[in-house]
Formats: sequence, structure tokens, C-alpha cells
Amino acid sequence: MDDAFFQTPERTFGFAFQGFPLDRVAERRDDAAFLTSLSARGDAQVLLIGRDMPILKRDETHTILFPHAELAALGGAKYEALLGLDVRGAPVFAARLPDEAIEQRDDQSDGFLDRRLLALPGRDDLELIDLRSLATQGLVAPEALALLGTAKAVLDWHARHGFCSHCGQPTRVTAAGWRRECDACKMQHFPRTDPVVIMLAIDGERCLLGRQKRFPKGMYSALAGFVEPGETIEEAVRREIREESGVETGRIKYVASQPWPFPSSLMIGCFALAHQITVRIDEQELEDARWFDREEVRSMFEKRHPDALLAPNRMAIAHHLVKYWLDGEV
Amino acid sequence: MDDAFFQTPERTFGFAFQGFPLDRVAERRDDAAFLTSLSARGDAQVLLIGRDMPILKRDETHTILFPHAELAALGGAKYEALLGLDVRGAPVFAARLPDEAIEQRDDQSDGFLDRRLLALPGRDDLELIDLRSLATQGLVAPEALALLGTAKAVLDWHARHGFCSHCGQPTRVTAAGWRRECDACKMQHFPRTDPVVIMLAIDGERCLLGRQKRFPKGMYSALAGFVEPGETIEEAVRREIREESGVETGRIKYVASQPWPFPSSLMIGCFALAHQITVRIDEQELEDARWFDREEVRSMFEKRHPDALLAPNRMAIAHHLVKYWLDGEV
Repeated sequence: MDDAFFQTPERTFGFAFQGFPLDRVAERRDDAAFLTSLSARGDAQVLLIGRDMPILKRDETHTILFPHAELAALGGAKYEALLGLDVRGAPVFAARLPDEAIEQRDDQSDGFLDRRLLALPGRDDLELIDLRSLATQGLVAPEALALLGTAKAVLDWHARHGFCSHCGQPTRVTAAGWRRECDACKMQHFPRTDPVVIMLAIDGERCLLGRQKRFPKGMYSALAGFVEPGETIEEAVRREIREESGVETGRIKYVASQPWPFPSSLMIGCFALAHQITVRIDEQELEDARWFDREEVRSMFEKRHPDALLAPNRMAIAHHLVKYWLDGEV
Repeated sequence: MDDAFFQTPERTFGFAFQGFPLDRVAERRDDAAFLTSLSARGDAQVLLIGRDMPILKRDETHTILFPHAELAALGGAKYEALLGLDVRGAPVFAARLPDEAIEQRDDQSDGFLDRRLLALPGRDDLELIDLRSLATQGLVAPEALALLGTAKAVLDWHARHGFCSHCGQPTRVTAAGWRRECDACKMQHFPRTDPVVIMLAIDGERCLLGRQKRFPKGMYSALAGFVEPGETIEEAVRREIREESGVETGRIKYVASQPWPFPSSLMIGCFALAHQITVRIDEQELEDARWFDREEVRSMFEKRHPDALLAPNRMAIAHHLVKYWLDGEV
């Protein structure tokens, strides 16, 4: 036994969307009597999504859970799923309101859907804030973010999977919102989770960071890409680093993983030891990639880089992978 | 730096479907001129799937790659994907033949599709063997299994995704067989890979093994289950062990991963330290689960267990997780 490993407590990385606080009761999602008993409970709660955005109380509590009984007055659920039971056994549901329940106000239109443009008619006590902004700004507690992340992944999946990919006919929701079934061809469909590798190649005292064009100005981050059919995690890490940067790596060390509901990824965080360090960028994927030494990376975390380069936001696992390396804990 | 880790070579677990031997050239799948140049090459090869089963030369070579020029005479491709380039730069494709190209012989029908029942008319030099049997029996080299696993995952995905899950209209193949696009709603669809955790809970000198009803007689294996939206790998490991066996675990150690093309999983192999060891089985999921000490597990690997209990086959990552623990390398 690797006692040193097992006797160290699990490191709590501070990234977003981990720490789901409910019992998912996954094994009871097909138990009709159980589900009926849950909907009869007066302490049932619901988390709301409107047009892809979480709905919050517009006050300092930023509450995201509402009595389930309020759902009907808000427009009802277009899609709904049972997230799980809290410690008292009370159910928590996630519901996506119909798009029509959300009013789009055009007076400040700047081409983006953000909190200024969307509102629930007659409910000025509620606001809509996109999940990425919520996570970046730390407006809600980690457990609330984990609930919202799970809800967004499952409800977005419903929104994209109304039809059977096998035969093209409409599908219907079963298993308390965790499965769709096709009555025409009998195919069952489950929410999709896409594994993505995200990794830091290391060469001695330097690490490899890159930036995509769509990143915020000055931000450099870990490389990343989807695991393809037929790959191990390690094979995917080596391939993605090679494709994007030309760097060849050998030994891979898994560190941590993060659910990433944009729309439905599982980020698998790794380190990779480089043995061919010349960088040749794939310009379709990256705008830049190069080796950074510790002092430069430290200046990015401390927001004193001479060219105003920045580390990724702490909501993202990339931030913590780089920080972990910076602290010499790889 | 964890030099002890990075200076140890990567352990080669002997499970199936790893070690994909080609350059996937993923970044060139949308390069039309490149794809045209590949199909013009005389050294292009193709791997064939018929009715879900790999097609092999019926001789001691068990060849799985054929000149691409032979594809038309065999019935052509219902679905086709570029697997990658070999070291000479020659392309290797995977093709699924139309079902009609495969003859079903009824003379020995026993209710299963297996090598005795399916054949290619006029090609008695070829046979169809299901991929699981191929892997279990070790009939082909590891690199061939990796090609077949990738091919099966991608081609099965095409077979289940002819229609757009978003709008129900037919989709068409793009990106050299690695994407489907909907002309009606413009949605893009990518091959699906489902992350699955597979893990051994450990309590001192014992490990937790279970069996599903569908397992071969006497076989016990690691517990396993799909990662759900909103979970880290570690959260999924703890939840699945709890749900299936009632055992509570704390620290989780990732060990290795395996592509598992039945139909499209990524098996993520872990150990989990138990701290509440009473077993309560979920009888929907498991027929049995209990703690095994090293001597009992050793007797299973050596096929001398008094009740004829067996370890999982070495094609599966579960075999190697258990063996790793047995050898004291956790």
C-alpha cells in the first residue's frame, strides 16, 4: 500500500462545480411509488433555469432553491429532473422554464444574453445570471454551484435531445429526468458526459501554457482536448499536446477532475513530462503556446506580469493545475 | 517534483484496446485536399466490420487490414472513417459493410450471432468473430485490437446516430467520419465516449469484489458505473461503491484507464480506501458482493478456488486492478 498517498487527506482544489451535496438516489429513479411520494412532500425544492441561465433571488442571499410549489406560477417546467435528496430526505428538483416565461428586454440590447436583458415578468425579486459569471464571481456557495452545474448539464442535454438519434422520432422523459426513451424504436438515451483531458506539460522548471483566440485578453492556460474513442487518458494527453504544440511527452500523472457544464464535459487534469520541447503551434487551435518559468507564472498569478499576462480564473481546474505546479507539488 | 513517479516508466497493464498505433491526424479531418490525396494512394488499407463484428482472414495470420481497393467488391461501406496514418504515411480506414453483404447461415442457429452463423458470400477466406471473443482469446496483436476497438466505437456511433437528436432530421457524415452534421438545424454531433469508473474498495488486506447476474459463472470483479453529469471522478467512485454495496470510501487513487468499445466507454480504474465496511447489496445491480482476502483472490487467479470462483479476464482493466492490488502495488 502506498501509505503516503492514502494517509494524506484528499486535497481540496478550489475549482467550481465539485462537491454535489445531495444523495442522487440514482437506483430509485425508476421507482414510481417513490417518485410519487417525493412530489407530495411539502418541503420539495426546485432550482430554476431560464434560457440557459440560473435564476436567483435578487438580494444578498442569492438563493437558488425555491419551494417546488412556486414552479407552476413561474410558467411550469419545460424539462425537469430530480437532482437528489437533502440530508432531511427532502427532494431537490431542477426545472427549465419555457423560453416564453422569460422576457427579453430590448432597451439595453448589446448582442449578448446577460442579466440586464432577461427578466421574469412580475418577479423583480428574481434575476438571471449566466452560470460562468456566477462561478467566476463567486456569488453563490460551492454547493450551490455544484447543484447548478449538474442541473445545467442535464437540462441542456434534454434541450438538445428531444428526438431519437437512431430513428428520428420524438423521445420522452423517464427515470425522473435522467433518461429519454424512444417509443418507435425502443432505444434508451442517457445524459451525455464528454471526457476532456486538460494538462500541463513540464520541462524541468518550466511549464507549457497556450492561449486560444477566444480567451480573455492576456490569459494563458493549460492545453486541453476531447478524449476520442479508442484512447486511454494517457494517450489522449500525449496526442493533444503533440497536435496543439508539437511537444512530445512521456509519463502522465493524473491529479484531479472537474465537472464542466459547458455543455457537458468532465475535465481530467494531468501533468505530462516533456522529452521533445520544441514548440510548433497548431494555428487552428492556438494563438500562442510557449514555455513559462516559475517566476513568470508567479507574476501572472500576482497580476504583475510586465505584459499583463494572466493565469486562468480559479473557478477552472487549469488555475489549480498551474498553481499546484508553481507550489512544487507535482 | 514527484521524481519517484516521473522516473518510473509507465506501467504497461496488459488490458485490451490500448496502444492505438496510428497518427490520428485529427487536425486534418476537415482538409478536403488532404483527404482526396489519401484516397488516391495505392497503399490505403481498410479494416472491416460486418453486422457489429470484425472481419478477419481465416488463416493463421488473422489479418484485419485489407487493401482499400477491395472494399467495393465486398459491398462497399455503409459507414466509413479515417482511423489515421501509419508510419509510412499510408491511410488506414474503417468501414462497416451493409448488413446485406453479410450472409446469415441458419443451419447451426442457436440464437446467437457468432462466427459460425455469419459469412461473406463467396469469400470463404474471411470470417467474422465478435470483438469481445477476439480480445478474450488473444487471436490478434494488441495494436490490431486497438484499431478494432476504435473502429467499432466510431462505426457503432454512426449506426445509432443517423438522425439529429435536436430536430429529428437526417444527419450527414463529415470530418472524415468523425462528425455528423444536421443541414436542417445546423447542429454538429461528435462521437460519444462515456466515462465509467471501475474500482476496487480496499479494507486493510481485503478488497471488495462483486458479481452481476450476467457475468460468467463464478466470476467476481471490480464494481463499476457511469460518471454522471456534475460529478468528479472521485465523487463518482464513492457514489457507485455506496449505491451498489453500502460501503463508504474516502481517499481515491487513479491508476489507469481503458477504452471499452461496448459500445463506447472509457473505463477509469481507481482504488478507494474503505472506512465503513458493512456490505449491503443493491440487488438490482449485483447478485453478490463481499470482501476477499489475498489468499482467496490468489486462488481465483490460479484457478484453484474451492468454489471455482474466477478473476476477470485479462482483456479487462478489472483483472489488472485486482492483480496490481494482489501484488501489493496499490
